[in-house]
Amino acid sequence: MAAFKLTNLLGLEGLSADDISHILETAESMSEINARPIKKVPTLRGKLVVSFFYEPSTRTKTSFDVAAKRLSADSVSLSASTSSLTKGETLVDTAKNLEAMGPDLLIMRHSMSGAPHLLARHMNCSIINAGDGTHEHPSQGLLDMMTIKRNKGDFNGLNVSIIGDISHSRVARSDIIGLTTMGAKVRVYGPRTLLPPYVETLGAEVCDSMDHAVEDADVVMMLRVQKERLDDVLFPSLREYARCFGLSAQHLKKAKPDVIVMHPGPINRGVELAPDVADGPYSVILNQVENGVSVRMALLYLLVGQESA
Amino acid sequence: MAAFKLTNLLGLEGLSADDISHILETAESMSEINARPIKKVPTLRGKLVVSFFYEPSTRTKTSFDVAAKRLSADSVSLSASTSSLTKGETLVDTAKNLEAMGPDLLIMRHSMSGAPHLLARHMNCSIINAGDGTHEHPSQGLLDMMTIKRNKGDFNGLNVSIIGDISHSRVARSDIIGLTTMGAKVRVYGPRTLLPPYVETLGAEVCDSMDHAVEDADVVMMLRVQKERLDDVLFPSLREYARCFGLSAQHLKKAKPDVIVMHPGPINRGVELAPDVADGPYSVILNQVENGVSVRMALLYLLVGQESA
Amino acid sequence: MAAFKLTNLLGLEGLSADDISHILETAESMSEINARPIKKVPTLRGKLVVSFFYEPSTRTKTSFDVAAKRLSADSVSLSASTSSLTKGETLVDTAKNLEAMGPDLLIMRHSMSGAPHLLARHMNCSIINAGDGTHEHPSQGLLDMMTIKRNKGDFNGLNVSIIGDISHSRVARSDIIGLTTMGAKVRVYGPRTLLPPYVETLGAEVCDSMDHAVEDADVVMMLRVQKERLDDVLFPSLREYARCFGLSAQHLKKAKPDVIVMHPGPINRGVELAPDVADGPYSVILNQVENGVSVRMALLYLLVGQESA
Repeated sequence: MAAFKLTNLLGLEGLSADDISHILETAESMSEINARPIKKVPTLRGKLVVSFFYEPSTRTKTSFDVAAKRLSADSVSLSASTSSLTKGETLVDTAKNLEAMGPDLLIMRHSMSGAPHLLARHMNCSIINAGDGTHEHPSQGLLDMMTIKRNKGDFNGLNVSIIGDISHSRVARSDIIGLTTMGAKVRVYGPRTLLPPYVETLGAEVCDSMDHAVEDADVVMMLRVQKERLDDVLFPSLREYARCFGLSAQHLKKAKPDVIVMHPGPINRGVELAPDVADGPYSVILNQVENGVSVRMALLYLLVGQESA
Repeated sequence: MAAFKLTNLLGLEGLSADDISHILETAESMSEINARPIKKVPTLRGKLVVSFFYEPSTRTKTSFDVAAKRLSADSVSLSASTSSLTKGETLVDTAKNLEAMGPDLLIMRHSMSGAPHLLARHMNCSIINAGDGTHEHPSQGLLDMMTIKRNKGDFNGLNVSIIGDISHSRVARSDIIGLTTMGAKVRVYGPRTLLPPYVETLGAEVCDSMDHAVEDADVVMMLRVQKERLDDVLFPSLREYARCFGLSAQHLKKAKPDVIVMHPGPINRGVELAPDVADGPYSVILNQVENGVSVRMALLYLLVGQESA
Repeated sequence: MAAFKLTNLLGLEGLSADDISHILETAESMSEINARPIKKVPTLRGKLVVSFFYEPSTRTKTSFDVAAKRLSADSVSLSASTSSLTKGETLVDTAKNLEAMGPDLLIMRHSMSGAPHLLARHMNCSIINAGDGTHEHPSQGLLDMMTIKRNKGDFNGLNVSIIGDISHSRVARSDIIGLTTMGAKVRVYGPRTLLPPYVETLGAEVCDSMDHAVEDADVVMMLRVQKERLDDVLFPSLREYARCFGLSAQHLKKAKPDVIVMHPGPINRGVELAPDVADGPYSVILNQVENGVSVRMALLYLLVGQESA
């Protein structure tokens, strides 16, 4: 294990199948810590993790916070509303100032695609991209993959269908990149105007109906609808969206009998998922959240916890 | 002590006199830790406490934060403004997502009466109600009772007068429930339109004047006026309120000579309390705040710290 | 070292040269901790530091947070937006309530000059002024002095030029007080209407041109322009300000060859500093930020860490 060390995690693009496997295996060992009564180890004692979120976030930020505490790292949080950005400082200047305080790791979310990549060119400390614009959200991609692996054992030849607004989803992009790297067969379905060109470049198949998308699927991953995005593309209404792209128990009859249903949350009940699907036996949505803590512990460890290895 | 274990603390309703005594005794032992130069013990090391406040709060949240740190628990905070609620997720879904991250305890404040009870039906981790709408605020009730006990020794036959807007006060309800359970005689006084029916059900006496309310009182507890509530009931002004329901040094001459004056804070000086009463010799208001940390340490310990007992 | 103990740090006014030297020496030993791979010592374990910021701040607050974590202190933060002040409580009442929770130290920023001095008269716990109105910002003054000392060795006879809006700058006031106490020769330059009378009382020289201000300078300290302040004094525009009071590489040719350029941040690039100066070889701006953590560790230690000495 000492041979592999991440410097940054800016995206799943560029990671090899071995890299991803190694992260997922590390996450599995972290999940053993999370199963103990005292879920805390001293691994990152004295390490300083700075969270810098330019967009609000509940679950990603909390998940990283919990991961840092489980590994005994110190953490400090900044949010856009309290940051100097409102005072006209550039992003790079803010980041270099933070770096001068000696953090070991910067976890960053930003509405601008590529913002963490920009910082990585100017900073020496490690950076995790916790979501940049419509580009990537690699820790979400990895927790999705951990959840799939735990349920299906292997990615090879697995049918994974991703349904919804693909083009605005950084989750979808990270998942498609990671899953195709690992040998899964990815299908996508959603409003035509919300299908980005990269999908086919990466070898994902574009479906023309819910039935086609769900047929023989091992995994169905529903994306969150963002109401304001629908307005952008003149989509008539959430109700109309639900009728065309929402997943019902009826649809799942066409999938493999042991299909799992995933969603990055927060769920719009009755829009992308019928309530009985969200709470039904196929749903692994809360397992995704649980695995998120293990994946983020693995990332913290692999980025800043291996000095003595 | 190992015989008693709380699962949740949703309210003082339903707790027996023995339960309350046990919590108050535990709080007394916690106050010994708070008297030391190094006010920290490893009791809750590795336990994760999540604070979820849907209403702003300074003192309750800070008091729980300090209590958690004194016991070496890890804590993570979410507030409504940064939570996914603004993204349309249901309260239960948000809570189940938090639970999937493995907290041991959720401390929750919500503007909706009954919100923590709703969550308790869906979650496995322990819950403390840190104030729900106009319903209960049990940790405040307990710190009030600890303060009374420290000053008066026993609750039995004690005259406790609660004065102000009873019907909108979750503090008053928790206090009335707790104090009557312990055998105190509770009197209430306030604007007629702000006296809820439960008061008499619980055996509290409704007074018809300040003089009546304060006469022979061992304890006078003044409630905070919320300006916006007065508008609701067409009360003319804060000045008028102060004249009718504010406590002056003159009133206290009718009380027992060793009367104590309490207030849950923050004080509106010159409205519910004349400044010389707030700062005077009868006031135990800052002791209430001090005891709040001990009571909250006791609750954290009793809810999540006894596994090895 | 045991002979010196700070009670509060409300300003640099009133500190002797020995006091300042002692703080800077302590900061030097703290910087050794910050150079280690594990930048954490148990010195303040069990001590509780409360940050109370009535004005938003990124770098000062984060710097104190990092300092507290490096020394293993517990810290709790309150901000004006979540505080009870919005509920009409007085500043002194809020502070006395916080004190009742047993903190060892209160770190406070407030828009009102003198606010921490007011609290110091009512509280028993230690207070650090983290910036009060246009009055003082002593920890910034000390980190500036640490940065100068590291680069120049000694303050005696050093030419330090402070340029910009002197009258609204609490940083300038703390620097002028501290530097003149240590024997440096301070020159100031800026818009005439923004030169406060105290400057000459303290023995600083007022310059009449950039050339005069920069000539033979060992240190040039540029102050941040606050756009809204310029409007107050009818200053035409930021561009005009930059032309009159901005520092260019050209100006620096008149300074000593080993001149250093400082700025408290955040920088307005192209206004008070030309970009090539901000990033150039003379700039020690990021060292200031780095030294800020060491200075704040020293202050925490000197205020609350010496009980056992």
